[in-house]
Amino acid sequence: MITALKQQVFEANMDLPRHGLVTFTWGNVSAIDSERNAVVIKPSGVAYETMRVEDMVVVDMEGRVIEGNFRPSSDTATHLALYRRYPQIGGIVHTHSTYATAWAQAGLPIPALGTTHADYFYGDIPCTRALTRSEVESDYELNTGRVIIETLGEVNPLHTPGVVVYQHGPFAWGKDAHDAVHNAVVMEEVAHMDWVACSINPRLRPIDGYLMDKHFNRKHGPGAYYGQTDKQR
Amino acid sequence: MITALKQQVFEANMDLPRHGLVTFTWGNVSAIDSERNAVVIKPSGVAYETMRVEDMVVVDMEGRVIEGNFRPSSDTATHLALYRRYPQIGGIVHTHSTYATAWAQAGLPIPALGTTHADYFYGDIPCTRALTRSEVESDYELNTGRVIIETLGEVNPLHTPGVVVYQHGPFAWGKDAHDAVHNAVVMEEVAHMDWVACSINPRLRPIDGYLMDKHFNRKHGPGAYYGQTDKQR
Amino acid sequence: MITALKQQVFEANMDLPRHGLVTFTWGNVSAIDSERNAVVIKPSGVAYETMRVEDMVVVDMEGRVIEGNFRPSSDTATHLALYRRYPQIGGIVHTHSTYATAWAQAGLPIPALGTTHADYFYGDIPCTRALTRSEVESDYELNTGRVIIETLGEVNPLHTPGVVVYQHGPFAWGKDAHDAVHNAVVMEEVAHMDWVACSINPRLRPIDGYLMDKHFNRKHGPGAYYGQTDKQR
Amino acid sequence: MITALKQQVFEANMDLPRHGLVTFTWGNVSAIDSERNAVVIKPSGVAYETMRVEDMVVVDMEGRVIEGNFRPSSDTATHLALYRRYPQIGGIVHTHSTYATAWAQAGLPIPALGTTHADYFYGDIPCTRALTRSEVESDYELNTGRVIIETLGEVNPLHTPGVVVYQHGPFAWGKDAHDAVHNAVVMEEVAHMDWVACSINPRLRPIDGYLMDKHFNRKHGPGAYYGQTDKQR
Repeated sequence: MITALKQQVFEANMDLPRHGLVTFTWGNVSAIDSERNAVVIKPSGVAYETMRVEDMVVVDMEGRVIEGNFRPSSDTATHLALYRRYPQIGGIVHTHSTYATAWAQAGLPIPALGTTHADYFYGDIPCTRALTRSEVESDYELNTGRVIIETLGEVNPLHTPGVVVYQHGPFAWGKDAHDAVHNAVVMEEVAHMDWVACSINPRLRPIDGYLMDKHFNRKHGPGAYYGQTDKQR
Repeated sequence: MITALKQQVFEANMDLPRHGLVTFTWGNVSAIDSERNAVVIKPSGVAYETMRVEDMVVVDMEGRVIEGNFRPSSDTATHLALYRRYPQIGGIVHTHSTYATAWAQAGLPIPALGTTHADYFYGDIPCTRALTRSEVESDYELNTGRVIIETLGEVNPLHTPGVVVYQHGPFAWGKDAHDAVHNAVVMEEVAHMDWVACSINPRLRPIDGYLMDKHFNRKHGPGAYYGQTDKQR
Repeated sequence: MITALKQQVFEANMDLPRHGLVTFTWGNVSAIDSERNAVVIKPSGVAYETMRVEDMVVVDMEGRVIEGNFRPSSDTATHLALYRRYPQIGGIVHTHSTYATAWAQAGLPIPALGTTHADYFYGDIPCTRALTRSEVESDYELNTGRVIIETLGEVNPLHTPGVVVYQHGPFAWGKDAHDAVHNAVVMEEVAHMDWVACSINPRLRPIDGYLMDKHFNRKHGPGAYYGQTDKQR
Repeated sequence: MITALKQQVFEANMDLPRHGLVTFTWGNVSAIDSERNAVVIKPSGVAYETMRVEDMVVVDMEGRVIEGNFRPSSDTATHLALYRRYPQIGGIVHTHSTYATAWAQAGLPIPALGTTHADYFYGDIPCTRALTRSEVESDYELNTGRVIIETLGEVNPLHTPGVVVYQHGPFAWGKDAHDAVHNAVVMEEVAHMDWVACSINPRLRPIDGYLMDKHFNRKHGPGAYYGQTDKQR
């Protein structure tokens, strides 16, 4: 089981440079094995070009290394905080992708402006508040997870599968590692097109609520009709 | 005949990622066999990497599947509305390409600013009005086709071979599937350069009417002299 | 001789998609054989993917086809006007590259803002005036050449190796076809960085004259010391 | 020793086009052998496609060629000035990369807006003052080095591993040639995202000082915990 998950996490990590989301080692993907209460995550600061499946690190829910020869990603505590809070989340990704990071630096949510956004995110992609000095100075990565949770509030995390952390960058998640990367790609793409749209027309309106409902639900609602049924696939 | 059309539609769909117009499965191309009153279209939500010619779906003019193992694109009703209204249209493409979608989100037509535009589009590329709540809540995809038709009005659809649907994205068409994709590429390119041009000089003027006439007609008018005659090709 | 020139013109044309300057067939390169008073130019509307050396068209200085099975580029008359006026020019290129075309649509010269520009262009890259209705309606391509000449005035065309034609796009040239493409790449790159620079700081200053002199002359002046001497190469 | 350094400098130079930092020959990397007081640098104006390890040029600290068949980069005197002043610097790179050059042309520092920046640069990436006429007209490249040194003042050059030279472009450095290129890639990336961020929100705030401290120190401080320890690597 863990072997299969290591393979999935490795592949999801390798998808990051393939989708243009990372420069050097600036990104990491993890996934949870909720039966064993273990998380598989990218090792810290290892280059994508030379990384192998067996380099993935397995940690327990407190971040102790169970398996692996490397230190886990320095952002491990952020991932674990989210897994502990949200049982719906199966995979998490963090990158410094250009456009989503620009919105994080701008300190603004990535606004819901169109159906591209509404196909995956129900409402704006929020931007967290600034961490305080004491939140940064001790347990920084854990506090990053906490401020994401505070920002999400009571929403279903699979309906808002990502946020931008103020002055830092995007975190995205999904039902598994592959889905998390998918949502990170969507976030980068809408971050790009929203910037251009706002530059073209600074007085544009957010997406009509009923259009957002329609698109989100035709993909994720009970009567979803986008794509193929499991039988057809 | 349908076999040849399937091949064309398949190839036109595969051209979308090649031209950078799609992320994941966010695009679809169709073509009509007007003798048989049948339309060949991409299956819904199938990845480009694994899609095969035989996965193309054949539907009748009411959208019933005639041939194929998959559900047709969720946008099929939009395509069919356009084919029913405009006998000149042989192929249709829908994408969420970055820059054209940004104009759709901005709620503005892509303005005719230069000869790149005028070589393919006679006048601005219009942006539709917003769909109403009831138009979205029932027969959404059909109503998307209807609002495109309402926007085009009485123009020759091959002289305005595309529009942007408000808060959604671009639809383009042409005399066949290949031509439709060609026009979608042009739309994305002019959407990009028009944004940059408006950013450089917010008070720029639209293209002079006589220059637009010249460029459109040297490619599409009765005395066209761009390219090769059929004999030379 | 013409065979060698055909090869050079073919290769220079093939460099256009390689440098990201063209979409589809939107570009053409020519070169002159000044001893024979003949110009080799790309055929009109032929795809780069299938184009061969032998498809290059040879025309005389009035545009009559001397050799070749295709029609020459529809812009041939523009190229010939420039060759007739400027004996220093050995090659010419026309594209619709994104950023240079955006400046053409904005109706503004590409300003000399830095040393990247000054290494190749001495002063702003001018934008032509609009062609009049009658200049467009008859002998359009010839008049495009004339308005470029009018814009250059008395400057050395190798010191201003390109202009943008209003509402159309860039033309560049050089001592041969290869050099012309090189200058077209530079123009596109400075068009991009100048847009970004003006967006960052709308009140920036043009390059200091003495810095422009230094950079232009260390590459093109009598005491040039950039690169290798002929002996070293 | 010099052979190994030539190999490193060659590879670091070849990384420039791979990371999209250079067009044509517009970039150069050097490294110092501080025991022998020799610097290995790219030859001037040689194309990356055909450059070989043995084309690297070795110069002494006054710029006299010790080894090599080519002229050294025209920017050699700038590199040497920095090596003479800062014993901490092991490698230097100069490019005209698009976004960093745009900030140089805008005449503004690249502001510290987020953790991507703070992971490598402690504080803004400064922009030099303009060189005076006399600084440009004699010993231009040496004076470029001097104005970089004047701009850095008393900071640790490995804490501010790069600047933009006004109206020219970026210079970056590091503990060796590879590290210098790494910092040049970071500078280009933050130059890009900072432009977008400022365009999204012109009134954004610089990064909180304690967040900058945290990120810079978790990678570069005494208790650094990003990446692997030497033993693990």
